[in-house]
Amino acid sequence: MFQTRLTKMLGIEYPIIQGGMLWLSGAELTAAVSNAGGLGILSSATFPEKETLRAEIRRTRQMTDKPFGVNIPLLPAIKPLDVYGLIEAIAEEGVRVVETAGRSPEEYLPLLKKNGIKVMHKVTSVRFARKAEAIGCDMVVIDGFECAGHPGEEDVSSLVLLPAAVDAVSIPVIASGGFADGRGLIAALALGAEGILMGTRFMVSREAPMHMKIKEYLTGLPETETTLVLRSLRNSARVIKNSVSSRVLEIEKQGATIEELLPLVSGKKEKELMDTGDLEIGLLHCGQVVGLIRDIPAVAEIINNIIAQATEVRKRLQLQH
Amino acid sequence: MFQTRLTKMLGIEYPIIQGGMLWLSGAELTAAVSNAGGLGILSSATFPEKETLRAEIRRTRQMTDKPFGVNIPLLPAIKPLDVYGLIEAIAEEGVRVVETAGRSPEEYLPLLKKNGIKVMHKVTSVRFARKAEAIGCDMVVIDGFECAGHPGEEDVSSLVLLPAAVDAVSIPVIASGGFADGRGLIAALALGAEGILMGTRFMVSREAPMHMKIKEYLTGLPETETTLVLRSLRNSARVIKNSVSSRVLEIEKQGATIEELLPLVSGKKEKELMDTGDLEIGLLHCGQVVGLIRDIPAVAEIINNIIAQATEVRKRLQLQH
Repeated sequence: MFQTRLTKMLGIEYPIIQGGMLWLSGAELTAAVSNAGGLGILSSATFPEKETLRAEIRRTRQMTDKPFGVNIPLLPAIKPLDVYGLIEAIAEEGVRVVETAGRSPEEYLPLLKKNGIKVMHKVTSVRFARKAEAIGCDMVVIDGFECAGHPGEEDVSSLVLLPAAVDAVSIPVIASGGFADGRGLIAALALGAEGILMGTRFMVSREAPMHMKIKEYLTGLPETETTLVLRSLRNSARVIKNSVSSRVLEIEKQGATIEELLPLVSGKKEKELMDTGDLEIGLLHCGQVVGLIRDIPAVAEIINNIIAQATEVRKRLQLQH
Repeated sequence: MFQTRLTKMLGIEYPIIQGGMLWLSGAELTAAVSNAGGLGILSSATFPEKETLRAEIRRTRQMTDKPFGVNIPLLPAIKPLDVYGLIEAIAEEGVRVVETAGRSPEEYLPLLKKNGIKVMHKVTSVRFARKAEAIGCDMVVIDGFECAGHPGEEDVSSLVLLPAAVDAVSIPVIASGGFADGRGLIAALALGAEGILMGTRFMVSREAPMHMKIKEYLTGLPETETTLVLRSLRNSARVIKNSVSSRVLEIEKQGATIEELLPLVSGKKEKELMDTGDLEIGLLHCGQVVGLIRDIPAVAEIINNIIAQATEVRKRLQLQH
């Protein structure tokens, strides 16, 4: 159902991609999504060395014979990733698609292409979508203002950014930010996307390795309970409102430096939060679409529900004469 | 085409509403929209006295025999509107639908209902959508973060806010903020709306009484060229980026008072801007969707294009097996 250029290019059944999420997208989640007919994506930042990533790819392969991808964040980091090493592991293990984000993947494209790896690059503006196409990316992911993680600094919502990008490029466009159900899938396809990428929806799934308390908390949240932090560093991140996000916003207002902010925004704290179920010990990246998520199903059920609802919505549209 | 509870309730052909816009929604624009099968809405703030509004309603009636509405803003104002007087004129002149916004129309509902007038209330949150239904409004307009004018302070985009509101109320929901074409109409219907309300698209139409220079300027703008001002007063407004919006943001940062801000944000300056074509003399309210608007057609052409494109999009969805 809902075959597009994207499903054909990736060899998947449904145009549904699970975005690479730090700490969450390991073998279990990734394989579950791919087994259910979508595309799972391993988070290489969670397995940041060539051999740890290789091991996780092999673990994933044992759980699924369907295609899956690997995410490579190209953000500046205190401890930069060995991107060439990661790509070597990806290529050697026969993974056929990579998601990049953060900055242009141009430097790595020759190596990726040489190994027959398709590249989907995630951007937050039309300008960078054009750039991604120009340098030879195969697909582009458009991340709207409502997304979890890093929406950029322009604050343009998916509803506007997505069709603007579709008009600007010829390669397949994937919608990201604000999508969690079958209504959203049809909206994305209507706007010209060839698939949706979801983080928050898969975060609140049975397979995501996160404490049940946090998942349950998220299913009770209204759509107003996320906020943008780190705008003062021009590195905005969408997170759940909690005491840590309040503190970050407060000290940002007072002109805090990166050094003062780092201990509060550390990824390790997010991991601890996910593991312990204590929501007040760190930031938790999450999209506005959390306001539409009210259950904690298995991944296969999420995907089946989306396809069933999208099919219903399509029928309903057909009847609106 | 695309008949919904909304089109039936309003007696219109297409589920397309032109939002009431200060200075712009007079008889010409309103009648053009209604004649083309949508619902035009007069801006009572532009004709703020009982008799001036009555005259404009009569002028509109001479140009169309189709239904049209009147917008009544309930925002606190320096010179408050005589809302009861306006409703009397509306009722006496036989107008059958009123759009309210700003705060709850509860006080006026008995008078409106007694006169058989349908009420569509515009809100920026699920909570106020529920409230609108509870007090007896007939329809609710959901205004997403990307909208022109007043998106509220919660910054939730239409893609999330709209389906959340659809899930929360039983009355027809109208999508507003981010809609300008047939792709958007199908997306809105997929998300559960029963129609779309557009301001910016009709602002850039042949009939809108605004200097051609401004219309031409808007057709060249990317989606990144709007900004929110007046957040410091918790009265955020989305406007085009220009020297005035920069100045407002700058003095807001320095803690400017209402008194210091008022001269910069005056509605009279916006009128002067619209009349003279000089973009640097005031604020101009405009939605992010300006980034999708590239032409200046007649209103009838806008509506016909939307319906034609929506029909195409629906066909395309049907073929995506």
